[in-house]
Amino acid sequence: MKAPKYKLISAYIKEQITNGTWPVGSRLPSQRELARQFEVNRSTIITALDELAADGLIEGKLGMGTVVINNTWTLMRAVPLVNWNEQVKLGAHQASIPTVQAINQAESNENLIQLSKGELSKDLFPLDDMRAVITKVGRNLEPFGYEDPKGNLLLREAISKYLSQKDIKVSTSSIIVVSGALQALHLISIGLLERGSTVFLEDPSYVNSLSTFQSAGMKLQGISMDKEGILPEKIEVAHQNKNSVLYCHPTFHNPTGALMGWKRRQELLKLAEHKQIPIIEDDVYSDLWLDSPPPLPIKSHDRNGNVLYLGSLSKSLNPGLRIGWIVGPEAVMDRLADLKMQTDYGTSSISQRAAAEWLSSGLYEQHLLTVRKHLKARRNAALQALDTHLSRYAEWEQPAGGFFIWVKFNPEVALSDLYRKALAHGVLINPGKIYSNQKNQYFRLSFANGRIDDIVKGIAVLESLIKDC
Amino acid sequence: MKAPKYKLISAYIKEQITNGTWPVGSRLPSQRELARQFEVNRSTIITALDELAADGLIEGKLGMGTVVINNTWTLMRAVPLVNWNEQVKLGAHQASIPTVQAINQAESNENLIQLSKGELSKDLFPLDDMRAVITKVGRNLEPFGYEDPKGNLLLREAISKYLSQKDIKVSTSSIIVVSGALQALHLISIGLLERGSTVFLEDPSYVNSLSTFQSAGMKLQGISMDKEGILPEKIEVAHQNKNSVLYCHPTFHNPTGALMGWKRRQELLKLAEHKQIPIIEDDVYSDLWLDSPPPLPIKSHDRNGNVLYLGSLSKSLNPGLRIGWIVGPEAVMDRLADLKMQTDYGTSSISQRAAAEWLSSGLYEQHLLTVRKHLKARRNAALQALDTHLSRYAEWEQPAGGFFIWVKFNPEVALSDLYRKALAHGVLINPGKIYSNQKNQYFRLSFANGRIDDIVKGIAVLESLIKDC
Repeated sequence: MKAPKYKLISAYIKEQITNGTWPVGSRLPSQRELARQFEVNRSTIITALDELAADGLIEGKLGMGTVVINNTWTLMRAVPLVNWNEQVKLGAHQASIPTVQAINQAESNENLIQLSKGELSKDLFPLDDMRAVITKVGRNLEPFGYEDPKGNLLLREAISKYLSQKDIKVSTSSIIVVSGALQALHLISIGLLERGSTVFLEDPSYVNSLSTFQSAGMKLQGISMDKEGILPEKIEVAHQNKNSVLYCHPTFHNPTGALMGWKRRQELLKLAEHKQIPIIEDDVYSDLWLDSPPPLPIKSHDRNGNVLYLGSLSKSLNPGLRIGWIVGPEAVMDRLADLKMQTDYGTSSISQRAAAEWLSSGLYEQHLLTVRKHLKARRNAALQALDTHLSRYAEWEQPAGGFFIWVKFNPEVALSDLYRKALAHGVLINPGKIYSNQKNQYFRLSFANGRIDDIVKGIAVLESLIKDC
Repeated sequence: MKAPKYKLISAYIKEQITNGTWPVGSRLPSQRELARQFEVNRSTIITALDELAADGLIEGKLGMGTVVINNTWTLMRAVPLVNWNEQVKLGAHQASIPTVQAINQAESNENLIQLSKGELSKDLFPLDDMRAVITKVGRNLEPFGYEDPKGNLLLREAISKYLSQKDIKVSTSSIIVVSGALQALHLISIGLLERGSTVFLEDPSYVNSLSTFQSAGMKLQGISMDKEGILPEKIEVAHQNKNSVLYCHPTFHNPTGALMGWKRRQELLKLAEHKQIPIIEDDVYSDLWLDSPPPLPIKSHDRNGNVLYLGSLSKSLNPGLRIGWIVGPEAVMDRLADLKMQTDYGTSSISQRAAAEWLSSGLYEQHLLTVRKHLKARRNAALQALDTHLSRYAEWEQPAGGFFIWVKFNPEVALSDLYRKALAHGVLINPGKIYSNQKNQYFRLSFANGRIDDIVKGIAVLESLIKDC
């Protein structure tokens, strides 16, 4: 017995939908087009579509034709990231996730001038040393398997020694290895924070472009900054109950580049102790100082276990290793290590050995000398290009380290959509609104990723776009 | 001005608490002991403790002395894993998480006879080849950074080719690389399943010893098995609405070792299609067949994108690489890749390159030949030892692959707590109750990890313990 033709057609269309060729939200070809394609009458197509509509997979929409509204996975009410995206609207800050996704994609487009990417340029990849480290790890390999829940002991010893230079004196049992600082935030958000609790953070903040905390049910509450970062007195005003935590990024803040002085750090710690607000101190850029070393981390003066401290090799060495760490009270680290095991059973053994070799061999410190020199040249070139091309339209601070310059256009510049226009002209920038819905007149310029001449060219393109307005 | 002595003492104790030296739940030394230690009167100690009690950190408990009830982190109501542990009570199955944690710790104790660990013995670590692979990866390295959200393309191509041998024909865009199958479950649970939805799974199941799904708000519902695994008709009875998913492990099931025949696989797929129940097919053991190759995966006959398929190198090659994969409809993979980026920004570049080299060089296939041979010898030795020592007390099936024998004691064996007694005698086994609260008379015996003579010795110890009862 042969299946009727409309059955074959509906099965075919269903396959395209579930395979994702025609994802939810997409338009099917017109009935006429389908009839032509399958060499059948339009009535056969209509019968096939009726069946799919009855299954809840498609829907006729006025003026849009037939639209895919479900697939097998969404039909089970998984409706996965539709909800997921909706969860990203939180507190005062509404993260523009589609823009972030578009930027993530555009960042891998090598034809674009990258003024966006928060990643060291491939020119600064330490190829010889990385090859040497990995081959050494290979040669000296002994059998390995699942690592200790807190991470490879040699790596934790190397991290402990490295942190002592920052005056953070901790034993290996107060350190856990994670796959980058983002995973640290993920683990903290699902493991230590209660749904409905409040996360105070800088306004603007890089974290607003993520959905980590929000997806775990936390509210984000932005706190105003000045040139030294987040303002403790504003936290005090905003703080209403015990159910809150402070995420902050005191050194070469993303996106503003702000550097918090030592006095402010002490004030923050004092406030946190007084109000019993735990601090998550994100310190992934501090090795990338360009003028002089930054003040010591807040963690270095934490005597009460109030601070969870996050570090990483992703910014200063390479993100492909996926090596970061959390430092904090031993009991909290025990919790997070258990959680880490529950989410991915630990970080790659090979990466952990490579990171231990980088840190303990002295190669990392040598690498930093090179990176700082080149990064400084890049920053200075970017600042000079900004002076040349944008000083009439915008203002900015010189960052003392990190990757970013936070550029604010004057209110009289009518610049509705610089991001899209720049992209159309081959230049990728990060619009301020992804870090704060109050920062439409800003953009974040990364001097870390593009080639110097491209950075200068990109800034010139921005000037021409503004002139055209 | 000097702080009064009791202040110094309360500060000291607070530090011990927040540092985790005295974790929540632990008992402080007695007042007399503290007085002696600090060389003060007992009244000074009482004043210090009163202050800490007022802060909510400690509490006097009748008959227990003074107990730590909070630290700074828990005071913000994070009370992290206390709640976390409570969430692990789900549906009919209550996972005994403290036991699992104890087992996880005991598994790294090299003085124990390991009849527990689901990890290939270090004797089967392919040291020469692994060294060769890693040094080759090192030598051929080119600059790398964040990988594609779905994972390194060369690795996905190698996985695609490898899967075609299992009759799973998929393009690289339908594959995402993850850090092991556990991370796959974590991503699926937080990204594709709605809170409150039901996960059907085998009873018993390895998943009951995890808290992945439950932590994401899903209910687990165990379905009876026979020798071929989960029973489709029981799923049909249990299935009440569309909001459910089936997790299953058809090939060398953990913990029972059951192998599902081809007919049962077809029935399951048909049921899932008919009822629109998505299937998560966990297939991490199928390369470890010992007698003859198992039937093709359910995924190989999935024409409607109903099945998400999970694979991994952790069981068959090495878990330290942290390399696994998910295969499914492209649209779902897009969602999961985005989620993966949001949780850890991808898997280690070095591990991905190493895995690609293993798969594409043919070394993996060679390695499997060796592993199968040795694993078979281990299984046979374990079966023989069981025959010799436990045939009067228990029964079991011969597993056709994988790591485990599922041993059921006769009801007349009064064996209240074999796990603890065995541990006291230096033998680690996994009690059945961590996989199902109805399987108290079972234990899972792993023949993969210990040395053969130790496995035999361990089984003999079990016999002597039973005789003593």
